[in-house]
Amino acid sequence: MKVPKVVFIIIMACVILLLGQPALAQSEVTLESVDEGVQTAITGVNFVWVLVCGFLVMLMQLGFAMLEGGLTRAKNNANIMMKNLMDFGAGSLAYWAVGFALMMGTSTGAMQLIAGTDGFFLLGDTYSSPDMIKMWFWQMVFCATAATIVSGAMAERTKFSTYVIASIVISALIYPIYGHWVWGGGWLATGEFMVSLANNGNGYGAMDFAGSGVVHAVGGFVALAGAWLVGARIGKYGPGGKVNAIPGHSIPMAIFGVFILWFGWFGFNPGSTLAGTDTRIALIAVNTTLAAAAGGMSAMFITWYLYRKPDVGMTGNGVVAGLVAITAPCAFVSPAASVAIGLIAGGLVIASVWFFDNKLKIDDPVGAISVHGANGVFGLLALGLFADGTYMQVTGLIFGNAGFFLAQIISAIVVALWAFGIGAVMFYILKKTIGLRVKPEEELEGLDLSEHGVTAYPNFVTTDGAFGTAGPSMHKTGAEKEPMKAMPAMEKGA
Amino acid sequence: MKVPKVVFIIIMACVILLLGQPALAQSEVTLESVDEGVQTAITGVNFVWVLVCGFLVMLMQLGFAMLEGGLTRAKNNANIMMKNLMDFGAGSLAYWAVGFALMMGTSTGAMQLIAGTDGFFLLGDTYSSPDMIKMWFWQMVFCATAATIVSGAMAERTKFSTYVIASIVISALIYPIYGHWVWGGGWLATGEFMVSLANNGNGYGAMDFAGSGVVHAVGGFVALAGAWLVGARIGKYGPGGKVNAIPGHSIPMAIFGVFILWFGWFGFNPGSTLAGTDTRIALIAVNTTLAAAAGGMSAMFITWYLYRKPDVGMTGNGVVAGLVAITAPCAFVSPAASVAIGLIAGGLVIASVWFFDNKLKIDDPVGAISVHGANGVFGLLALGLFADGTYMQVTGLIFGNAGFFLAQIISAIVVALWAFGIGAVMFYILKKTIGLRVKPEEELEGLDLSEHGVTAYPNFVTTDGAFGTAGPSMHKTGAEKEPMKAMPAMEKGA
Amino acid sequence: MKVPKVVFIIIMACVILLLGQPALAQSEVTLESVDEGVQTAITGVNFVWVLVCGFLVMLMQLGFAMLEGGLTRAKNNANIMMKNLMDFGAGSLAYWAVGFALMMGTSTGAMQLIAGTDGFFLLGDTYSSPDMIKMWFWQMVFCATAATIVSGAMAERTKFSTYVIASIVISALIYPIYGHWVWGGGWLATGEFMVSLANNGNGYGAMDFAGSGVVHAVGGFVALAGAWLVGARIGKYGPGGKVNAIPGHSIPMAIFGVFILWFGWFGFNPGSTLAGTDTRIALIAVNTTLAAAAGGMSAMFITWYLYRKPDVGMTGNGVVAGLVAITAPCAFVSPAASVAIGLIAGGLVIASVWFFDNKLKIDDPVGAISVHGANGVFGLLALGLFADGTYMQVTGLIFGNAGFFLAQIISAIVVALWAFGIGAVMFYILKKTIGLRVKPEEELEGLDLSEHGVTAYPNFVTTDGAFGTAGPSMHKTGAEKEPMKAMPAMEKGA
Repeated sequence: MKVPKVVFIIIMACVILLLGQPALAQSEVTLESVDEGVQTAITGVNFVWVLVCGFLVMLMQLGFAMLEGGLTRAKNNANIMMKNLMDFGAGSLAYWAVGFALMMGTSTGAMQLIAGTDGFFLLGDTYSSPDMIKMWFWQMVFCATAATIVSGAMAERTKFSTYVIASIVISALIYPIYGHWVWGGGWLATGEFMVSLANNGNGYGAMDFAGSGVVHAVGGFVALAGAWLVGARIGKYGPGGKVNAIPGHSIPMAIFGVFILWFGWFGFNPGSTLAGTDTRIALIAVNTTLAAAAGGMSAMFITWYLYRKPDVGMTGNGVVAGLVAITAPCAFVSPAASVAIGLIAGGLVIASVWFFDNKLKIDDPVGAISVHGANGVFGLLALGLFADGTYMQVTGLIFGNAGFFLAQIISAIVVALWAFGIGAVMFYILKKTIGLRVKPEEELEGLDLSEHGVTAYPNFVTTDGAFGTAGPSMHKTGAEKEPMKAMPAMEKGA
Repeated sequence: MKVPKVVFIIIMACVILLLGQPALAQSEVTLESVDEGVQTAITGVNFVWVLVCGFLVMLMQLGFAMLEGGLTRAKNNANIMMKNLMDFGAGSLAYWAVGFALMMGTSTGAMQLIAGTDGFFLLGDTYSSPDMIKMWFWQMVFCATAATIVSGAMAERTKFSTYVIASIVISALIYPIYGHWVWGGGWLATGEFMVSLANNGNGYGAMDFAGSGVVHAVGGFVALAGAWLVGARIGKYGPGGKVNAIPGHSIPMAIFGVFILWFGWFGFNPGSTLAGTDTRIALIAVNTTLAAAAGGMSAMFITWYLYRKPDVGMTGNGVVAGLVAITAPCAFVSPAASVAIGLIAGGLVIASVWFFDNKLKIDDPVGAISVHGANGVFGLLALGLFADGTYMQVTGLIFGNAGFFLAQIISAIVVALWAFGIGAVMFYILKKTIGLRVKPEEELEGLDLSEHGVTAYPNFVTTDGAFGTAGPSMHKTGAEKEPMKAMPAMEKGA
Repeated sequence: MKVPKVVFIIIMACVILLLGQPALAQSEVTLESVDEGVQTAITGVNFVWVLVCGFLVMLMQLGFAMLEGGLTRAKNNANIMMKNLMDFGAGSLAYWAVGFALMMGTSTGAMQLIAGTDGFFLLGDTYSSPDMIKMWFWQMVFCATAATIVSGAMAERTKFSTYVIASIVISALIYPIYGHWVWGGGWLATGEFMVSLANNGNGYGAMDFAGSGVVHAVGGFVALAGAWLVGARIGKYGPGGKVNAIPGHSIPMAIFGVFILWFGWFGFNPGSTLAGTDTRIALIAVNTTLAAAAGGMSAMFITWYLYRKPDVGMTGNGVVAGLVAITAPCAFVSPAASVAIGLIAGGLVIASVWFFDNKLKIDDPVGAISVHGANGVFGLLALGLFADGTYMQVTGLIFGNAGFFLAQIISAIVVALWAFGIGAVMFYILKKTIGLRVKPEEELEGLDLSEHGVTAYPNFVTTDGAFGTAGPSMHKTGAEKEPMKAMPAMEKGA
């Protein structure tokens, strides 16, 4: 087989490495040349690992889009697809322009504990460093995850233009700042106070292996601020404190999203070693899937007990809750501890959904606040509890390290206050300027038509989901009524 | 760019490996240090390979969910999503607790040929061995595949609670035991009888590279037992021996599933080298895709010839049949042999579907028995026939090795007897205790409402699929009647 | 844990590499043995990288299927699924039998500049070379991408049998020949004329890193020939030059496809280094995602400005346009240039769709001609413009290299002429022999019934999409009319 001149280097680079070097080796193998080869191989393993894992994390954007779409009504699904496409697009551009520099850029003095100040637009030295380029890709897909969580909690009534601005602010500012504090050399990780407080024998401050706090709690608490300020969907809370369920339009679509998230999380957690040569990646993958399984089964059996029937949507949320909760501790705990964490997460998400829906009356169509906010915080605490010392010598409370647990509590409080506070400020300003909500008639008609001039499903006969609002409780989806028998929209149409 | 103290080790581990070592190397490169680096690199390549391939295999859960969902009716799709989420969740927990120990655990004496006896809950030495942890992940995703196959064959009439128990038993017991016999050092692989029988010049007993038998035939024959004992869906078999087709509710969803399975199989087969340094992985990927393509095209042209129109669902099943059949021989045969195996698989699945549907009158809504059972057995035989000696010196019958072909025949008979027998016992006990089927009125209404209290598609106007039962033959989907003209449910609703 | 005899080699190969070698090393570490280990590791990294990236590219088949399906009507979606399954199946078999040999086979003399002449059916030396096997896999998934592009442009009225033949010809002949010219040592890459013309200081002819031209422009211009010769769908162009929009049946399905394509492109572009040890893969991934984001946001804001509402489908097409345009230059340009390329691509796709739809009146239901054809050509030019000399010393026009830009212009003209010309010949012959189109009554009824005897969605009540044809302009989807109020099919049914 012949090798062309033009793609000579592309193909030959490979061929030479594979076939050519043994031949070359005869004449010039030295300890230095071999050592160089070793570095090439190790660098290659780690680049391949981080990039492939990053690709899986990027696919979680699809998972979030499908989960949110499935759990909301058909009349808003073009809008929901658009939001998910936009928040990844605009968010990654914002992170390119500003966010990465604030999170991972160099800075000096006290500023070092607050934010980075160089590397904007990936210019200068950053462009010429493959390591920084790789790091940008990795952090960008994480940033995109934080941003997209907010979409679900505010679904079905938020103005698209408002959400565009919010996505940019989250990606350029909100995610990167807390991210710098924990992963970029900021005060939660390295501040003297934190380190001395965390008298845990290894000199660490607060930790978060793959982002229960940095990604999920940030997203979840900004979502809480947003869902609170935008208000509930029309028909969600009836007179006399009645809480109506508004079933989503497609359970298969939602569970499709859950499977994609589960798959993508195998990038999210194991990839956070940033090294394929760290054999801990196997345990991280195992812990990740066991916590997800335990979270799902926990939610399934609890709803089965509470409502006499195993609830599909809540089982899906239990899986994601397990994944969120194991994200911080995944590298530091045993499989048995991961199962325990998942079991707790599955229960926590049910309790939290009930609390926000029935007690606080904050309308969160997909349960994002509970799945990502509550379980994100729980993940930080679980790391402080269950770390068993088998990795990086990190031990938690049940292995006697109260200082580290305290550091995790502080970090959990900080992330909740930061994300909720700055999120509330942002959404308050947006509310007082361009507004948060579409008009009531637009909401009733569906955001697809009012915001985008299309419908999501032009060839299908759909109902407006109104019959779903008759259900009296969280888990009741209104589907106990056979759709064919209660279809006001159809009667209107016929 | 500065590196923070807290995530110091995480990021620096990578940075040091990438940048730091050449600097260090100046002072301390030795043959031993370089050799250590080589081992680190090779270990890294293999961990990355096995884990990434395992992630792809895990995604096959989504493929199975979509294929089963697409081939069944809308009214059961929340139940089907739940089953697929549950069998992965409960199954992986069961495999963690019990299955892995039985399959891959250490044992002594005669017990060694039957089952392993340590490693339960990944405790003890297993937890501290990255290799065993990695192996657990790999075997767990395979186990989950075997378990989920059964779901499809029993779809649309099986009680959810019964299926929960069956999933656990398959994952904890049925899959691991035969798995031990072939992959865990059991009698089919190492027994003196088998090895002496298989006088094939290389001392092997029966083989199965990636699980045509261990995974697919096990799943397929348990499915046969289940579909037989649960009985046919209402309306499937009419009076006078009439066989009605019950079309699934979404062809795009089914084909989506097929593509995901095809994608996931690139983890399933090439990953089974357990080593990314084995360059045979390229041929395995090539053989896998060629057999899938040949299986699909074979089924397409055969249905085109038989029914005058190329059948979409059967083409999809032909693809999966080709994948199942190439799974055992993929590493041992040539591309041309792979195409031949795929062509046969595409025909075999059509014949087998016809046989089970029309002759045995066993109702298998998705064709799982034929796709996984019949073609799983065929895959074992194809390995015994076509192995050409280019890998591990394994040769098959057409290269003169009758002994090895005989070993494969024995293994194929054993897997069919084991999986069907133990499956029948399990489902018989379940039938006589908690029962296998939902009530007829629940089946007619759909399992979504009766088992989970929801509907899969609350915003869509759906029919109950009853018109589909009018079709007189396997391939006829009833859609020759325009749906709009025969919609009893709608008339009821209007 | 014990290791079985039969799978001894499979498992032990891994175990030995991981654990055994340090033990062996004590007795026999030599410079040669270590060097061999280095080659094993590097080969492993590159095989793993190319294969995993190839798997991602294969998944793009699903992305194309979903994008095409979502943008077309429900009544044709079984046909569309079948086309996408078939073009990958038949296409990969054709590429195995013929295409790869023409594209990458050895040849001598003048023939070397035109096509290869050995390696048919992967026989002979090719079978025994892991590198060639790996290269086949890589080129096959690229070939499949080119073939499937055509499907979308000709959707909803092309005979299935005709499309089968076209898929085979594209995969066996049209793609491989131009592919040989650029990637296989042909005249565009190495011809004296091209190299002397391209007096760019590095001796290259025309270049195309990952296939803006070789894959996408080829697919796009064959699609143009096909869409032109098959003619517009019934109802697309009304009397008096009126252009009607025919909305697709599912926006979520289309955007699902876009996300999968975005994901798959992380294999397409970074994998084209063919080496995981090339740290440029990080920058390629970054440039790929930035161009996609910029393309999507560009299209979103332009439609927002033009039509007052951000258009979902066009935003999705903008993402894919950005991906197509960055495919040729991805390794040679900076992140900032990638954003610029994406922004232009997003505008170009809107202008091109408008031009083909309103000026040339060529009916392309999914915009494939504009996304892949127009932006494929733009990608070749963008490489000639923006290459900044940081990789392989390739510089473009704005860095002073006019000769290379000229080479890219020639290559762009050649690909357009070749693909459109040979595509037109092929479709003209098919038109005059077996025919291109289904009968009008079949088209109105939907190709699902006429070509395959099924419907895509048997359990859903669907409309025929007729109301959609009322829309007066490209971006208007007809959905301004609430579906429930204009549902002739339903009234007929009730």
